[in-house]
Amino acid sequence: MNNKRLQRLSDYFRRELLDNTLPFWLRNAPDREYGGFTTFLDRKGAVLCPDKPMWVMGRISWLLARLYNDLEKKEEWLQLSRHGIEFIKKYGFDRDGRMFYSVTRDGRPLRKRRYLFAEIFAIMAFAEYGKAAGDREALETAKRLMRLVEELYAKPWDAPGALEPKVFPQTRPMRGHSMAMIQINTLQVLRRSDFSPDPLPYDRMIDAQIKEVFDLFVKPDKRCLLETVGPSGEYLGDTAEGRCVNPGHAIETAWFLLAEGKHRGDRALIERALPILDWSLDLGWDPKYGGILYFLDIEGKQPVQYEWDMKLWWPHNEAIYGC
Amino acid sequence: MNNKRLQRLSDYFRRELLDNTLPFWLRNAPDREYGGFTTFLDRKGAVLCPDKPMWVMGRISWLLARLYNDLEKKEEWLQLSRHGIEFIKKYGFDRDGRMFYSVTRDGRPLRKRRYLFAEIFAIMAFAEYGKAAGDREALETAKRLMRLVEELYAKPWDAPGALEPKVFPQTRPMRGHSMAMIQINTLQVLRRSDFSPDPLPYDRMIDAQIKEVFDLFVKPDKRCLLETVGPSGEYLGDTAEGRCVNPGHAIETAWFLLAEGKHRGDRALIERALPILDWSLDLGWDPKYGGILYFLDIEGKQPVQYEWDMKLWWPHNEAIYGC
Repeated sequence: MNNKRLQRLSDYFRRELLDNTLPFWLRNAPDREYGGFTTFLDRKGAVLCPDKPMWVMGRISWLLARLYNDLEKKEEWLQLSRHGIEFIKKYGFDRDGRMFYSVTRDGRPLRKRRYLFAEIFAIMAFAEYGKAAGDREALETAKRLMRLVEELYAKPWDAPGALEPKVFPQTRPMRGHSMAMIQINTLQVLRRSDFSPDPLPYDRMIDAQIKEVFDLFVKPDKRCLLETVGPSGEYLGDTAEGRCVNPGHAIETAWFLLAEGKHRGDRALIERALPILDWSLDLGWDPKYGGILYFLDIEGKQPVQYEWDMKLWWPHNEAIYGC
Repeated sequence: MNNKRLQRLSDYFRRELLDNTLPFWLRNAPDREYGGFTTFLDRKGAVLCPDKPMWVMGRISWLLARLYNDLEKKEEWLQLSRHGIEFIKKYGFDRDGRMFYSVTRDGRPLRKRRYLFAEIFAIMAFAEYGKAAGDREALETAKRLMRLVEELYAKPWDAPGALEPKVFPQTRPMRGHSMAMIQINTLQVLRRSDFSPDPLPYDRMIDAQIKEVFDLFVKPDKRCLLETVGPSGEYLGDTAEGRCVNPGHAIETAWFLLAEGKHRGDRALIERALPILDWSLDLGWDPKYGGILYFLDIEGKQPVQYEWDMKLWWPHNEAIYGC
């Protein structure tokens, strides 16, 4: 791709973000009555469901702070990011320090799940907002949550307070790819945001997750990054779950790694990450209609998810960003 | 539809069942080494995953016993039904009397869920097999499980030993349609199978579930049967879940009710059930390509499930049976 085409694409995406996507959400999402954002909208902005998933509250608050930090010091963006942060602080937390997965429009808890994604996206939101507002308390909330995630993630399944696994680990111990990968990005956001005198050891923490991604999930002989493996990276090829590849998810991991390589000037890391991008596009691209398929079976068997051949928006966003 | 066409269709479905569907499963599903059935197969019968969901073990064991009882006294069918029953007895039960949701090929537990469908389909299997084999112990297992289901279903969410609800009931108490409807069918199977001197009060138990279906879920003003309502049948129309209609599921309920009306010679019940069939076909039928859609929003809003406009096999089977 030549520079001119890159510039045209860059202009296009910037325009789409600032003149189309963002105005839609700023117009329709903020809930002026109860706080937070209503994000379950149809194409016209009408509310399909008023419930508020905490991880989406985190994502929007992060996005607005990120735009404020990197694009333009727009007061509206900072204020709306704070609007989200306030809602999360008020209604997001259970008494054990963990977060609810979703709450009602007025903040009453609906669900709490065994996954840590509400916490993960709150960390990014509190960190990026903390940087934008110079808010030390928000930053420390992010760091406290990060330590909680690290602790829960490292905990053996039979330790007190461990998250309940989906499948009995006595029978089939498994590791999923998503927590290692998302911690890389979360720690990257924390690192760039942490203006305190006592930052966490971000590089070392990122190293640990990068090692886990490569040691357990990246399979050069199969030309893929697997979603689920055994506790030491064993290929669980007799199960559908063990053969599952999510190309968009793997592409996302690839760009987290590429960003890390770029940040450190680590050419070797970039060289290790690029094949993940290539494999995932090779495997995931639909040769007939174009676009990236949602799930594939690495042995070419029938994927088990109903939605396996759908083209979701987010894998394409990750791919654009990754490439 | 005239009688000739009905006869042709009946011949067609019988042929498909006995000469196509059943031979495929009898050839590929029975696991002669570890017991039970391997049901996660591709179109050629190759195993996609060796895990054994308990409710599918129940379904196959029931089907074979039902064929034996109603169609032909084939020894192969009875033996294979017993083959499934033995696997369920050996590996299906947790120490609390509840069942596992799925186990490995060799019977080690993988998951236990908050839903009672493993138990429900085991009840039908034990009952129908008990009748086929004259096996009083199997029949009593079915009745014991039925009492357990009844007890757990009636238990308030905050009582000791209650099943964990998906959504905090303190915030949003909800009732789902599936347990009332499937208990009707389960009790029908038990009633026709129970040759003991002390049957449960099946008619009365069925009455209670029929009342629940009509009182809570059937909405004549909306011309639909809703999947999820408030504890007294309140319309939860501001949530996507509260507006959700699953036409195939509603059609299934309709034929359970029609079968009950026919069994009792209760014309009034039949008249109350028929509109459910009509509404569901009106709403669920795809006017452009034909077939029954998986999920719809009763207010015509965008359904939230990725798979909403897929045409699954089972709603069509239920519709053929229901009509």
